[in-house]
Formats: sequence, C-alpha cells, structure tokens
Amino acid sequence: MRRYAADKARRAVAASLRAASRSAGPSPAPAPHPRSPAPVAAMAAALARAMSTASVGTPAVSINTINPKVLKCEYAVRGEIVTHAQNLQQELQKNPESLPFDEILYCNIGNPQSLGQQPVTFFREVLSLCDHPVLLDKSETHALYSSDAIERAWQILDKIPGRATGAYSHSQGIKGLRDEIAAGIAARDGFHASGDNIFLTDGASPAVHMMMQLLISSEKDGILCPIPQYPLYSASIALHGGSLVCSVTTLPSPVPYFLDEETGWGLEVDELKKQLEEARSKGITVRALVVINPGNPTGQVLAEENQKKIVEFCKNEGLVLLADEVYQENIYVEDKQFHSFKKIARSMGYTDDDLPLVSFQSVSKGYYGECGKRGGYMEVTGFSPEVREQIYKVASVNLCSNISGQILASLVMNPPKAGDESFESFMAERDGILSSLARRAKALEEAFNSLEGITCNKAEGAMYLFPRLHLPQKAIGAAQAAGTAPDAYYAKHLLEATGILVVPGSGFGQVPGTWHFRCTILPQEDKIPAIISRFKEFHEKFMDEYRD
Amino acid sequence: MRRYAADKARRAVAASLRAASRSAGPSPAPAPHPRSPAPVAAMAAALARAMSTASVGTPAVSINTINPKVLKCEYAVRGEIVTHAQNLQQELQKNPESLPFDEILYCNIGNPQSLGQQPVTFFREVLSLCDHPVLLDKSETHALYSSDAIERAWQILDKIPGRATGAYSHSQGIKGLRDEIAAGIAARDGFHASGDNIFLTDGASPAVHMMMQLLISSEKDGILCPIPQYPLYSASIALHGGSLVCSVTTLPSPVPYFLDEETGWGLEVDELKKQLEEARSKGITVRALVVINPGNPTGQVLAEENQKKIVEFCKNEGLVLLADEVYQENIYVEDKQFHSFKKIARSMGYTDDDLPLVSFQSVSKGYYGECGKRGGYMEVTGFSPEVREQIYKVASVNLCSNISGQILASLVMNPPKAGDESFESFMAERDGILSSLARRAKALEEAFNSLEGITCNKAEGAMYLFPRLHLPQKAIGAAQAAGTAPDAYYAKHLLEATGILVVPGSGFGQVPGTWHFRCTILPQEDKIPAIISRFKEFHEKFMDEYRD
Repeated sequence: MRRYAADKARRAVAASLRAASRSAGPSPAPAPHPRSPAPVAAMAAALARAMSTASVGTPAVSINTINPKVLKCEYAVRGEIVTHAQNLQQELQKNPESLPFDEILYCNIGNPQSLGQQPVTFFREVLSLCDHPVLLDKSETHALYSSDAIERAWQILDKIPGRATGAYSHSQGIKGLRDEIAAGIAARDGFHASGDNIFLTDGASPAVHMMMQLLISSEKDGILCPIPQYPLYSASIALHGGSLVCSVTTLPSPVPYFLDEETGWGLEVDELKKQLEEARSKGITVRALVVINPGNPTGQVLAEENQKKIVEFCKNEGLVLLADEVYQENIYVEDKQFHSFKKIARSMGYTDDDLPLVSFQSVSKGYYGECGKRGGYMEVTGFSPEVREQIYKVASVNLCSNISGQILASLVMNPPKAGDESFESFMAERDGILSSLARRAKALEEAFNSLEGITCNKAEGAMYLFPRLHLPQKAIGAAQAAGTAPDAYYAKHLLEATGILVVPGSGFGQVPGTWHFRCTILPQEDKIPAIISRFKEFHEKFMDEYRD
Repeated sequence: MRRYAADKARRAVAASLRAASRSAGPSPAPAPHPRSPAPVAAMAAALARAMSTASVGTPAVSINTINPKVLKCEYAVRGEIVTHAQNLQQELQKNPESLPFDEILYCNIGNPQSLGQQPVTFFREVLSLCDHPVLLDKSETHALYSSDAIERAWQILDKIPGRATGAYSHSQGIKGLRDEIAAGIAARDGFHASGDNIFLTDGASPAVHMMMQLLISSEKDGILCPIPQYPLYSASIALHGGSLVCSVTTLPSPVPYFLDEETGWGLEVDELKKQLEEARSKGITVRALVVINPGNPTGQVLAEENQKKIVEFCKNEGLVLLADEVYQENIYVEDKQFHSFKKIARSMGYTDDDLPLVSFQSVSKGYYGECGKRGGYMEVTGFSPEVREQIYKVASVNLCSNISGQILASLVMNPPKAGDESFESFMAERDGILSSLARRAKALEEAFNSLEGITCNKAEGAMYLFPRLHLPQKAIGAAQAAGTAPDAYYAKHLLEATGILVVPGSGFGQVPGTWHFRCTILPQEDKIPAIISRFKEFHEKFMDEYRD
C-alpha cells in the first residue's frame, strides 16, 4: 500500500476533485426561445405593467439563494466534457466534414445499448406482453412471442394485484416479484433471502440516495468511500449534507480510502482502519463503508479473503456495509468469482443481528444493460424494525418504482432455465455478450499497456478500464497553464482529435500526483480495432508533442 | 375567509399534523425469516466468534442516529391506516368469513387501475411495441396492433438515438419526446413552449423533490403550502430540511395558507399575503408558493381571475410558483375549465424574465391513470441559466427517468387525432372514463351531503372528495380517550366496519377544530351504489352511537 501521509493525500485528492468540479460543467443552456405569440391584449397588459410601480419583492431565486449542497454536488460522468462532446455531435450533424472523425464514441458511461448492444429477447418479450396484457388472450400472439415468454407474462400478471400493471404497487415493489428476486438471491448465495427485505427502486441510484438520506444528518456524519470511487457516492453524500471529499477547509467527509493500484486495486483493511481513525479523531462519526465490487471505475473483483476482512471490519467498527454489487454478472477472468457480501457474512456465521448490510443491484448492468428501464433493488438486512420502518417511509414518499423496471428486475434474477423454449437462444445471447465484453476488455487493456506512458490494470469485472497516464512534465505544465487538471486536459484533446469520450480520473478521485481516465469497454467489438488505432495515433502524437 | 388568529391556527394545524404523524405508521415489520441454512463451518465460526472478545464498535445504526429529517417526515396517504387495511386484507385472504365485508376498497390514493380502471389501449399498444421493437418488422404484428400505434412506435423510435429504448437518455429525457410534449403544451395553452424547458421524471413526486432540494437550504427557508395540502409537499419539505408545519417549537416552515371551505375551497390572496408576512416577521425567507389546481384533496378548480391574482402575488413577492397541475384533464363541471398557470402568466404579458414557474404533470392521473408507469415531467420557466444548470445537474445524478414513462408522457400530451385509426375508440375510452368519474363524483358527493353531520363540497376536478365531519362531542371525546384524532378515529371505524379505506383529514392539515376525510372517486361505477349504502349504514350507526 502506498504510504502517502494521509493529510497530504487528502488535500491533494480534494484539489483534484475541486479541479474536476471547476471544470465539471453544466448542460448546454437552453436556446433563447422565440417570443411567445401573446395576443395583443397581453402585450398591452405587459406594457401597462412595465409602466406601473416596480415589483416589491426581491428576485425569486438565484444561484446565491439556492441550496448550497446542490452547488457542491458534482457528477463527473455527466460533467463538462460530456457537454463538450454533445456540442461536437451537434456540429457533426450540421457539418459532417467539420471534424477529424465521423462520430462521438461515448465511453464515458456504462450505457451498453447506446453503443449498439441489443436487448435480451426473452426479457423484452415479457415486458412487451405485460405492457399490453390483452395480447395474452389472442391466438395470434403465439406467432410473435415465445411460449415461455407468454407463460412468464401470465405468472407475473398473477403476482400483481388485479393484474393491474398500471397501478402503484406496494412501496417496496410487488410482493410476488420481491419473493422471486429473493429466491434468485438465495439460489446465487446458498443462503436464505426474504422478499420482505427487498426494496425495488428505479435503478440503483435512487436506492443509494435513499440510504444516504437515512444515514447522513450533517457534515459530522462520514461515509467511508473508495478512492477512486464512482461519483454517484460523492454526489449523493454532497446532496444529503456531507462535505466535499477531503477539503482542507471543511470536514473531510466522505472519508476516502485508497485502493492500491499496484496490487490491482486491492482494498487493504489497514488502510480502511487508518482512514477511519483519522476521521474519528476529527470528530466525524463514520456511519457506513461503501464497497463497489466488481469495482467501478477500477474493474477489480475482490478476493473472498479480502471480503471477509471487510465484513469483520464493518462488524467490529459498527459500520453499515453498503455493497454496490451492480456488476455481479460482469466477471471476465477465470480465476475470479463474484461473492455477494451477504453470502460472505453468512458464511462467516454472521446473521441479521450482527451487521447492517445493503446490497444494491440494477438492471442497467450485467449482460442485459437495460439502463433506460430504470430497474433495480436493494436487499436490506441487519437493521432494527424501527429503522426499517423509516426506510419504508422514505420509499413510500415516492409511492413506488416503475412496474416495468420491477418486472425486469425479477427477470434478471430468474432468467430462463434449461428446458424452457427460450433457454438456448437466451444463453447464446447472454454468453455472446459476456464473452465479447471479456475480449473487448482484454484488447483495450493490451492496447493501453502497449503505449508509452500508460499502465493499465486488468479489467477483472465491471465495464471499465482505468488506465494511468504517466504524463510528461510539459503536458502537466500545459494543463496547468490552461487551468485544468492534466487528465482532463488529456481527455479533452483525445475527444477533439478522435471523438472518443472518456472521463478524467480527477472526477473519481485518485492518489495525488497520479492521473487516469475511465474508459468503458462497451463499444461494439467490430469497432474496437479502429478505436484502438485512433487512440494510439492520438496518444503517440500527444506524447511526442509534450515530450520533456 | 375564516379569520382565525394566525398563530392559533398554526399551532392547531401543527397539532393536527402531529397527531396524524403519531399514528402515521410503519409498514408491517418483516416476518422473522427462518434461520439461514448456513453450513456447519459457518455455525462453528459463529460460535467461535461469540466466544471471542466483544466487538469494539457501537451499534452501526439506530433510530437515534439516523437523519432526524427522515423521522420528521410523514406521508398520510400511505400511513398507519393503510397498513391496518393491508393487515385486514391478509386476514380476509386467510379467512374470508372473519370480517363483515369481502374486500378492502382502497379509496386512500389516486390509483385508478388498482380499482379496475382499464388502461387506454392506444397507449399500451405503443408501449408494447417500443418494448420489443423487432415486432415492427414482422407482418403478423398488424394482426395484433392498430396501424397508428405501429406508426407512432416508429416515430418514437426515430426520436431515440440509435433506437435504443434500453439506453440511458439525456438527463432531461429524450429530446424528441420533450419537443413533442412542448408542442402539446403549446397547443393546450396557445403560447410557446420549448422542449429545452421540459424535465422528464419518474412521476411528479421526484420532480417535486428536485425542486424542494434546490430551493430549501435550511429551516429558515419556507414554502407557502395550501392547507389542506397533499402530504407529498409537507413530506418533501421535511425531508429536505424544512420544519414540520407550524410547530410552535420550531420555525413555521412550510408556511400554511388556508383554503376557504365555505367558498368551495377558494384561494384568497389576502390570506396568502397575511401568512407570508407573518412568516417573514419570524425570519423565514419564503421561497415558493405551491398551488395544486385542480385541487388535492379538495377538488376545486381555480377561476381564471383567482389564478391571475396568484401570479401577480408571486411576481410581486418574488416567489417561485410551483404549480401542481397533474389533474389538468380531470374536470367534472361545465362551468369550469383548466388553465395552466403558464398560460395565465403569459396572457398577463409576463415572460420568462418576470416569474419563475414550474408546472408538474404526471401520467398517473387524468383519464389514463398510469400510476405504475412512473412518468411525468416538469416544465421549468423563468429561472436564470445558472440555476437551470443546477436543476440539470441534480437530474443528472439520477441519470434519467425510465424510458417507458418518457414515452407515455409524450403520448398523453399528443394522443390520437381525428383521422387516426384509433381515434374513435380512443375517444370512446377517454370520454367513457371521464364521464363516469364525473357521475361517480356527483353520486358520492350527494350521498355524503344527504347524511347528518357531513357536508361536502362539489368535486369540480381531480379525483377526490374531502367531506367535513361534524362529529358529536361524544365521538370527539372517545377519540381523545383513544389517543387519536377524531377523524382518524372515524376512518378506522369506517374501515373496520365496511372495508372502505379513506385518509383522515388530519393527514392533509385542516382548519383547527374541523374534521374531514379524503375519499377518492375511483371505485368502479357499478360498485358505487353498494359503497354508498355500506357507508350510509356505518355512518348512521356511528352517529347514533355517539349522539350527544
């Protein structure tokens, strides 16, 4: 583990995040829209009003009067460089010859279907039938849908009170679907799971917000977060009243712990403990530990032994374990396997009484990649009934998550089985996607590692590579002169030269003095060679230009 | 307008809400689940652990350490009485003879399809096709779907980049769908609307939360709210750091204004001004005014002149106007019409420069009642570009709303037109639902008004009646003895005697010393006579029992 002085490290991470946030920018401002076609009478009224006494109030709302927590929050994966890319795309549409590339490759976010991945047929058949259940009574339907999709749609409708797919459900989600998800978890882990512990949500993000809302009362509450981390966590903590990571002028909450790049982004409990103690010595009550496994942005898959130590640590230190397990299906190496933290905890003999644990899952990732459906769940165990009631109450204020997303969450946790009509075609689609992702991860990793000034860990899982840039001093100086972080500077030049959009590492946090970018492995496989050659050409030119 | 001393009124409303919150309860605690089938090794580990030193940490999370804002928040429409009803329903399932009724009638929430309303065919056809676009290439599809649904699905897919219905969209929603919604708004209002101002959301609730998150920094920020109000507003304000309504021990934010029951729940600007000034004198900066039109729970439709005064008031006082317009299609009286606040403001000559205004719309209400789809939008006008960027940023942290909900929002704002294949059947479905709702509203209102001790305003719009209970002193005494608000006491007895579930008025706030309940008009029409007779029988017995 790197032994940077914790204080120095924190300050530098904070500076890196601040640099990112300075440049993490807005959506394009709306075009000024044409004046309303107001009738003549209205025009006259406006004129009269303009000539009357001035209004007595102050301006209703300004950047200085809105919630400062909103101002603090930043979300790099949809930040300034993404807006820049969208503007370039508009330019391309207007004038296809204006730029040295013909499309933007959105490698900034895990959004597989936006890059051409096709949805899994069985899942979509079932959703289509549940959206229009009168089809189930028509014989013509059998010409268009597989028989097990029809059968599954019936089963799902029977789980919905009144078969009403257009009704609000129970605020945790439809009970029958939660039970099906629990059965899927139990089959995966070999330990009991209960539908009563499942909260269906519109993707994992709202579930994370819900837990942050519950756990954070003030800046004195800390959440121990991985660095690098997925910026959903820092954003959510900021929105719910935590401080920005490691700012020297505010309390350092969330508390960062450094993943160790040299051991493949391993997670050392000694480092966790050090950060925890330091936070405590500053008066922070650390409430929870976030672990993303498989990792985002770093792609590591934690070893079972490591997970056990993490569970033990949370148990001993009285921390809620927030386990982001949305990439549980995305494993690309033979020697690693996904183990849920609940399975690990139960295999250690820990029960509901020992450890509050939340596992987040989403339909947006895996081999299905159904980001637009906004489905997901959290499995909530180890909380007292009183606290559980409060989680339920927060869920109830939004009434329920969308029913299509609920249905899809039940499908991904209970896909077709051997013997079902769709089983073989389903498995072919599934394995086709996963093996292609593994090949893409490997091809990109090898390409990155073949280049001067780049080192890149293996993507064992998830959907990302997080290569490290060893930039010449001259490039760092140029970035500083441009008022931007060196990795943001690099990413902007990459985008402008190639159309490839990646996210600068400063948006995720990184060990001070190191620079990275996150790149998804999601472009379709037939495009990978061209991407690699465009990337190489850019990178070599960049290094030549800035060689010290 | 009633002239209660404002202080006294506030204290009493607060007491009423506190009473509701004491009883507004939890979801049923999960059944203790069977012990995990942990392997023997795990058992041994647990034993060893139990025998080792005790953990050094404190309990990870308890009711005393979670965010107190979560504790403060209450949401009556899914509160204690709903849990009680769910328990009775389970009892009925186990033992159908155990209770004096054979089903629970959920009149607590505007959830039409849960009570048997059928979805609009055209909308569901389009959703079904968009969920499984490969159908569009098959000739058999024409046997199952109307030609204009197929055509519309093509149009929608063409608006989605890469036709990827499974991809995250722009964080405001798919641009082409937002433009279609804007065209629908412009056609409705006769004034320009821009897709750049539309934020598609998972129903109206997340949109309201987003605005509260933006506007509220601390308890010193007030939101002027109607009393009675839909508890989403008080809940959201509590979650985002406002105080409970009018508590004498905390700052009175949200600021209540009283709707005037005697003039059909009218909204007097003098009353608004009084409450505003009183709040200001206490150091509250009032940021926004919430107006629900048509009203919830009170069902009034505001007159155009009244709306103009409200706009003028917001303009003069520097308030954001938060216009909850989700019931815009639900108007049941000949002499009233829905006018959006934006239309009113524009007809007065006010432009984007004059007034920040947010209009909330949802696919859950209207004649479509698609609650489970979680679709909706807010139209955001009159904010500076800097503040707009912050709204966008908050939207981006949740990535995007669900695509089916986005599609449905575009459909309800652009339904089939004359000449389309589905037009006639669509209009028949639409008008059938709306005219039936009008008849149901009238039948229930007349029934309530025919009873001793009940007075009920006309439901001009929305989906609710809010009858006032003039309870005998003896009933009020019995409620007090039972430690509950008189209307909660009444509602509990109604539920237990008839299976009819309504929400006590104390959950919405009401003028002190008055008691109400909210009852939806949504049970299917053929059930209304039986409901009325069950209700009458209960009520007469109740009044007889407690007659002074």
